[in-house]
Amino acid sequence: MPKGEIRTVCKIDFDKPADQQTCLHNRWHPDIPFAGTIKDGETVKIECIDWTGGQIKNDDCADDIKNIDLTKPHYLSGPFEIEGAQPGDILLVEIMDVQPFPDRPWGFTGIFDRRNGGGFLDEIYPSAAKAIWDFEGIYATSRHIPHVKFAGLIHPGILGCAPSAELLATWNKREGELIAANRLDRDVALPPQPINVHAGSADGELKAKIGREGARTIPGRPEHGGNCDIKNLSRGSKVYLPVHVPGAKFSVGDLHFSQGDGEISFCGAIEMAGIITINFKVIKDGMAKMGLKSPIYIPGPVEPQFGPGRYIYFEGFSVDEHGKQHYMDVTTAYRQTTLRCIEYLRRFGYDDYQSYLLLSCAPVQGHVAGIVDIPNACTTLGLPMDIFDFDISPAAAAALGEKGTGLDMGRCAFESGKTEGVVDREAGKNSEFSFGGGLTYKQ
Amino acid sequence: MPKGEIRTVCKIDFDKPADQQTCLHNRWHPDIPFAGTIKDGETVKIECIDWTGGQIKNDDCADDIKNIDLTKPHYLSGPFEIEGAQPGDILLVEIMDVQPFPDRPWGFTGIFDRRNGGGFLDEIYPSAAKAIWDFEGIYATSRHIPHVKFAGLIHPGILGCAPSAELLATWNKREGELIAANRLDRDVALPPQPINVHAGSADGELKAKIGREGARTIPGRPEHGGNCDIKNLSRGSKVYLPVHVPGAKFSVGDLHFSQGDGEISFCGAIEMAGIITINFKVIKDGMAKMGLKSPIYIPGPVEPQFGPGRYIYFEGFSVDEHGKQHYMDVTTAYRQTTLRCIEYLRRFGYDDYQSYLLLSCAPVQGHVAGIVDIPNACTTLGLPMDIFDFDISPAAAAALGEKGTGLDMGRCAFESGKTEGVVDREAGKNSEFSFGGGLTYKQ
Amino acid sequence: MPKGEIRTVCKIDFDKPADQQTCLHNRWHPDIPFAGTIKDGETVKIECIDWTGGQIKNDDCADDIKNIDLTKPHYLSGPFEIEGAQPGDILLVEIMDVQPFPDRPWGFTGIFDRRNGGGFLDEIYPSAAKAIWDFEGIYATSRHIPHVKFAGLIHPGILGCAPSAELLATWNKREGELIAANRLDRDVALPPQPINVHAGSADGELKAKIGREGARTIPGRPEHGGNCDIKNLSRGSKVYLPVHVPGAKFSVGDLHFSQGDGEISFCGAIEMAGIITINFKVIKDGMAKMGLKSPIYIPGPVEPQFGPGRYIYFEGFSVDEHGKQHYMDVTTAYRQTTLRCIEYLRRFGYDDYQSYLLLSCAPVQGHVAGIVDIPNACTTLGLPMDIFDFDISPAAAAALGEKGTGLDMGRCAFESGKTEGVVDREAGKNSEFSFGGGLTYKQ
Amino acid sequence: MPKGEIRTVCKIDFDKPADQQTCLHNRWHPDIPFAGTIKDGETVKIECIDWTGGQIKNDDCADDIKNIDLTKPHYLSGPFEIEGAQPGDILLVEIMDVQPFPDRPWGFTGIFDRRNGGGFLDEIYPSAAKAIWDFEGIYATSRHIPHVKFAGLIHPGILGCAPSAELLATWNKREGELIAANRLDRDVALPPQPINVHAGSADGELKAKIGREGARTIPGRPEHGGNCDIKNLSRGSKVYLPVHVPGAKFSVGDLHFSQGDGEISFCGAIEMAGIITINFKVIKDGMAKMGLKSPIYIPGPVEPQFGPGRYIYFEGFSVDEHGKQHYMDVTTAYRQTTLRCIEYLRRFGYDDYQSYLLLSCAPVQGHVAGIVDIPNACTTLGLPMDIFDFDISPAAAAALGEKGTGLDMGRCAFESGKTEGVVDREAGKNSEFSFGGGLTYKQ
Repeated sequence: MPKGEIRTVCKIDFDKPADQQTCLHNRWHPDIPFAGTIKDGETVKIECIDWTGGQIKNDDCADDIKNIDLTKPHYLSGPFEIEGAQPGDILLVEIMDVQPFPDRPWGFTGIFDRRNGGGFLDEIYPSAAKAIWDFEGIYATSRHIPHVKFAGLIHPGILGCAPSAELLATWNKREGELIAANRLDRDVALPPQPINVHAGSADGELKAKIGREGARTIPGRPEHGGNCDIKNLSRGSKVYLPVHVPGAKFSVGDLHFSQGDGEISFCGAIEMAGIITINFKVIKDGMAKMGLKSPIYIPGPVEPQFGPGRYIYFEGFSVDEHGKQHYMDVTTAYRQTTLRCIEYLRRFGYDDYQSYLLLSCAPVQGHVAGIVDIPNACTTLGLPMDIFDFDISPAAAAALGEKGTGLDMGRCAFESGKTEGVVDREAGKNSEFSFGGGLTYKQ
Repeated sequence: MPKGEIRTVCKIDFDKPADQQTCLHNRWHPDIPFAGTIKDGETVKIECIDWTGGQIKNDDCADDIKNIDLTKPHYLSGPFEIEGAQPGDILLVEIMDVQPFPDRPWGFTGIFDRRNGGGFLDEIYPSAAKAIWDFEGIYATSRHIPHVKFAGLIHPGILGCAPSAELLATWNKREGELIAANRLDRDVALPPQPINVHAGSADGELKAKIGREGARTIPGRPEHGGNCDIKNLSRGSKVYLPVHVPGAKFSVGDLHFSQGDGEISFCGAIEMAGIITINFKVIKDGMAKMGLKSPIYIPGPVEPQFGPGRYIYFEGFSVDEHGKQHYMDVTTAYRQTTLRCIEYLRRFGYDDYQSYLLLSCAPVQGHVAGIVDIPNACTTLGLPMDIFDFDISPAAAAALGEKGTGLDMGRCAFESGKTEGVVDREAGKNSEFSFGGGLTYKQ
Repeated sequence: MPKGEIRTVCKIDFDKPADQQTCLHNRWHPDIPFAGTIKDGETVKIECIDWTGGQIKNDDCADDIKNIDLTKPHYLSGPFEIEGAQPGDILLVEIMDVQPFPDRPWGFTGIFDRRNGGGFLDEIYPSAAKAIWDFEGIYATSRHIPHVKFAGLIHPGILGCAPSAELLATWNKREGELIAANRLDRDVALPPQPINVHAGSADGELKAKIGREGARTIPGRPEHGGNCDIKNLSRGSKVYLPVHVPGAKFSVGDLHFSQGDGEISFCGAIEMAGIITINFKVIKDGMAKMGLKSPIYIPGPVEPQFGPGRYIYFEGFSVDEHGKQHYMDVTTAYRQTTLRCIEYLRRFGYDDYQSYLLLSCAPVQGHVAGIVDIPNACTTLGLPMDIFDFDISPAAAAALGEKGTGLDMGRCAFESGKTEGVVDREAGKNSEFSFGGGLTYKQ
Repeated sequence: MPKGEIRTVCKIDFDKPADQQTCLHNRWHPDIPFAGTIKDGETVKIECIDWTGGQIKNDDCADDIKNIDLTKPHYLSGPFEIEGAQPGDILLVEIMDVQPFPDRPWGFTGIFDRRNGGGFLDEIYPSAAKAIWDFEGIYATSRHIPHVKFAGLIHPGILGCAPSAELLATWNKREGELIAANRLDRDVALPPQPINVHAGSADGELKAKIGREGARTIPGRPEHGGNCDIKNLSRGSKVYLPVHVPGAKFSVGDLHFSQGDGEISFCGAIEMAGIITINFKVIKDGMAKMGLKSPIYIPGPVEPQFGPGRYIYFEGFSVDEHGKQHYMDVTTAYRQTTLRCIEYLRRFGYDDYQSYLLLSCAPVQGHVAGIVDIPNACTTLGLPMDIFDFDISPAAAAALGEKGTGLDMGRCAFESGKTEGVVDREAGKNSEFSFGGGLTYKQ
């Protein structure tokens, strides 16, 4: 009894706007109509558009990044009915494969303008920038970040089941309180946004309701996962997802050819359109049986492997770039860790914006190291040396003389007319992001 | 020309108090006298006492943990003069080996009392607790956490060079400002502490000065590393350390047989006395040549390896155990991640305190996953399934019926007269540390 | 400057016989006309038919295996002209990807009848048998070998450049001498075979000449590689191939979804049609510069990884199944090693033919262990435990009682009308392939 | 209840000849008296002398290798009584650790003279040679093979339980038949050797009997393992050994700091004296329950790991160095594979004898690749690039000009008065071990 070809449950039409395709949607809401039905135990292919819905072009100018309309993303494929799934069940999602479309072998990494999206280091790097990546089989390279090639740790940035009405209300309340209390000069969360709502096949009042209530797809959330952006949730992974509504209403999207831990530039993975192949199984009453409040997962077996001795690990602590001591703040520590790496890469000729893009999308390892030694949290970031086609080891760094590597590192894409991004040295004060006032020893 | 036996530059006398041994010290200060001299290029053995200086006993009662004197630790071996090292150089430290003493094949993991030390989860688990670990070659087991065995990812929790007077002043100012601004009902940093100062061979006014000014060893600090508690800085690792004073004044200690990312219970690694073998090389003018503001390192090649598919990864987000939404707070996210794992292990019969201890010291992988999707940071924690001698897979969890595993999980050590620790359910509100108000579905 | 879609240089037409497709051929000969041209530095896709040219069906009967026409295989795609390549150069072949055709998600593993092809264990297992494998993304499963699933270590069994006329003459002489000296009751090599020659677009006298002289594709050969069947030459691998004729005349085929070390049943990999993506680079004068007499390669980074502790290793020595001592014979040792594994798997309910098929195609590790301790060579075979969905560990084996696993292991496909294969216990004498006369201890 | 220090059951006295130490022996025989008793479940330390019993010196002359007395080795520690073990049981041996003696941090690798011991490549390299290795923690380096450093994959070359009288008779008959039939101009097996017998505490007639009947320790044998020389049987490994006599009579020795697959130069590992820590468990009736005819093992978790892309793999086929075609001969194929690697290393300045020594002891991976494509078996040998402190990649090889690497590679130790070894170019005919008559292309 030969098995046949695997069924495709969602087809993307690249000649049509994303918001006219009924198997896509861009909000989390229990009332978005099913986009299709999948059997318990079935394996299907699901086509996905890139998270922006096609706003970004394969060119050498970052205007599209700078002017992106962030009321639209993410466009997700679904929601799908998984036969038999009921609230309280666990949906076991096994990712059998993720691939780009054969005729669209490219993706993009972007740094958003600080005033439109921003990112983890936007106080220091406020400009928009972009790198285009070309795919050849398992490998990606970029004309905007030369001398780098790496195998994709390909994965979906988003997967999850729809919230129940009760859970959605919890989300809106919880995030609304944060917004209400906000004293920062930046958005801290995104409330429901009726503009540019795409609710699949819903229209009229139902669509309007979804717009008023529907949760944005930007953050991941503990009760269902969603936009968790876990780089290792790649081919072969098994994810255990809580089910909150009858039929599960599973959605997936935001495919990444590769991502580094943190996805620091926000549009930071190698974002792409592609095809994900998934097997679905329902574990009846799994939430109670397994005691899960958030998703868990088991990685697949085919991650790129470099050997531990092929990483350079950078260390960062919760003292910020102004020399200010924070209390056990892992976020601050990780920011410092990424800055240490950007500084290191400078001596090989990379521009800071190139490195910021690279750390966002290359398979860098971000670890919590020490989290109890007051007042300093410590984190580490592992940069694989083998993604570069020249030697970036500490020994090579120490041996570099005045002449540097002699390699042409080109530049990434900036907004029209610009050939470099702004570095806000005041924000990254004390020259070169140093802390503690410029320790420089002369002998 | 045969090489001879490797020289030992610091010998521990276990019959003498730690503060009477002149090759030990417990503060960071540039004026602590050299405890010995090591040549550029030399490999030496350095004996180290456990970080508490011998306060903890190999028994089944946690009174020693509860009543620990935290003005004393860490006792470090050194400071050693590295010949030729000058401020601005980088000291390349290659860790050739770390071993426990053959006649002291044991270590301890402790949870400090919330009022004396505390830890990452002390609001929920305020009691003192302890687990003793026995070493047989590469493996550790504990009578206090049965059915677990793992190979040590053995490493020093602390290594670094002494600060200059200028750098020490920066530290004291920076941390003093945090202390001055503190509104929390807990210590946020530890100022210099003249009590129980041990300054090596220094005494009299010099010792008093070191007590007044010397930085505590508890936190790691960006400019020199120190107590970074990086679990992968194990056998074979190369660390690049900034030098701030003539001769480097290198110190090392706080040896760990094993540790999990975060070392969450504070006394959380498997703490031990032992012997570290190190090769030292000086990279002249390395700070400028390599552009290092914080240490970097390259891991060694002999880390225990399980295969990616042998980890269960737990996900956590920056919504706390009271259901409150935090803004991009990785610390909160990692706390939730650890709680998800503790909840999971309950169904196999482990007490929360056992799991808290286990996550502190077993080689769990703590990753920053997504750090840009406002308002939720997402972190993951990977628990290796193969350290258990029974099946803890999600499939096993789902299949467990009323009877559980049938295994006797014993208990960890608590203070005298107690057989269990306190769980503050009010702190971990909404019962069982849930967020969002008890999502429970019945069918 | 966006890169476009990757060019496909050879398209397979599944509606046409293999020997009517001019971009295929089935002999090695310098005069086979070019099937296309590829630039130095170019990446192309090359479609390949399965090695038998479509003789094997996706069904449950092994008649096709039993009656296979072995004068036909292998059908290779090519030969391609690599622009600029000259004799003495090295062709650097980087395997960017290998994939099955999306609409043909299956492959086969066969055991040939001893009288038509045979295999490594044909004296003991002389019957034809077959297993069909279904592909879902990175994973393969088989209805003929239940309870097994594994990620493919996908690779080409054959790649190489055409021999020069001189080299071809050397091959024919060398193998002809072996055939002439043969005293065994079996073929020891295959001379040129004019029947069923397919020489690409050549016909008439040229085709006849190729038939008379052309080397068979069955063996790999040291000077060019060819059918080396190296399982780890998978995605991301770089192979350095000697060039013997102008334009290189590169051919590739015999795609395998997976294979075990040794490919022991001959048709032993998971054989499939598929698409290989390759980047080509010419290293001028590389043979002299690099001193290569045979190909070398560097594996890619995405091999499935299980962790060393997730393999059971079987040991075998050069004492054969009749108890006869051989002198340093690795071939005999490896045969014993595979038999030890087959015996082990019996207790979990697998039939010997199923295990023989499984060891041929699953990613088992075959190592030379000791090769100098006269008279016994020792080899090992590592079986990954995680490809089974039940516990096959030694602890599980020891715990199995009379009832066994209780799992239904089904059966593989045999010739029509047969439900099991022959086991020649006389050939595998002393029953159960034992050596040394039945060591059985009763207590 | 603290556990105490681990008991040592065999102490080596380096001031006394090996054959005067009653816990050592150098033959396999069921009547060698017990050297000590170990409980079922106990972990003990066992000290071991190097396999030659101390014949090799830490100096720069290979006379000791050339003149070694091979009637003496191996000196094994034991045999130990394992309480409760009976014929038919399986002894589960878990290797908790292997370490050199702290005050003897060195080992040796030797190439035996062709007329006294020989080795895998002795027809081409007939001279005696030696390299001394110095240990610093996990790493070994050699003054005789500069610019190489690697972490030890430390293991015992020999472990096993004594044969029963019946099994011993089988061995002697089986190997005696091979000797009787020998037509080669070299030893093919070693019969019992009454000279230099060391039978532990046995003397008089018992010792004489053991000398007449006792099996030599050189070969491993399928029924008990013995000298299997499996490099990955390192720290953390579990070995399942058949028991043939009451009390098991377990012996262990031939400790290796490191070894490559094949241990090709015979005295090819880094041979050392040291201490092995083992846990013993008896599996009652295990041979029948588990169906084991030869040992099986599960590797430990702490093997050095380089990443697959950090190996260069050499390919070899069963065409010998005289251009002669052999039939499916893996032994020949592996010999060619090692020669390809030696040739490759020449261009970096290593002498063939240095490379022969290096391939014997460094952690090279020897794989059976294809074993069914008549007439050519194919094997591969993976050389880890990261054990060299300079770049040996194919790219580096291709880029090397006339000047080479510029590094001083020194030389290994030869017999007194000699500074180089003989290369028998007639044996490795057709110049430089080529096959097929000197394929050299000029353009």
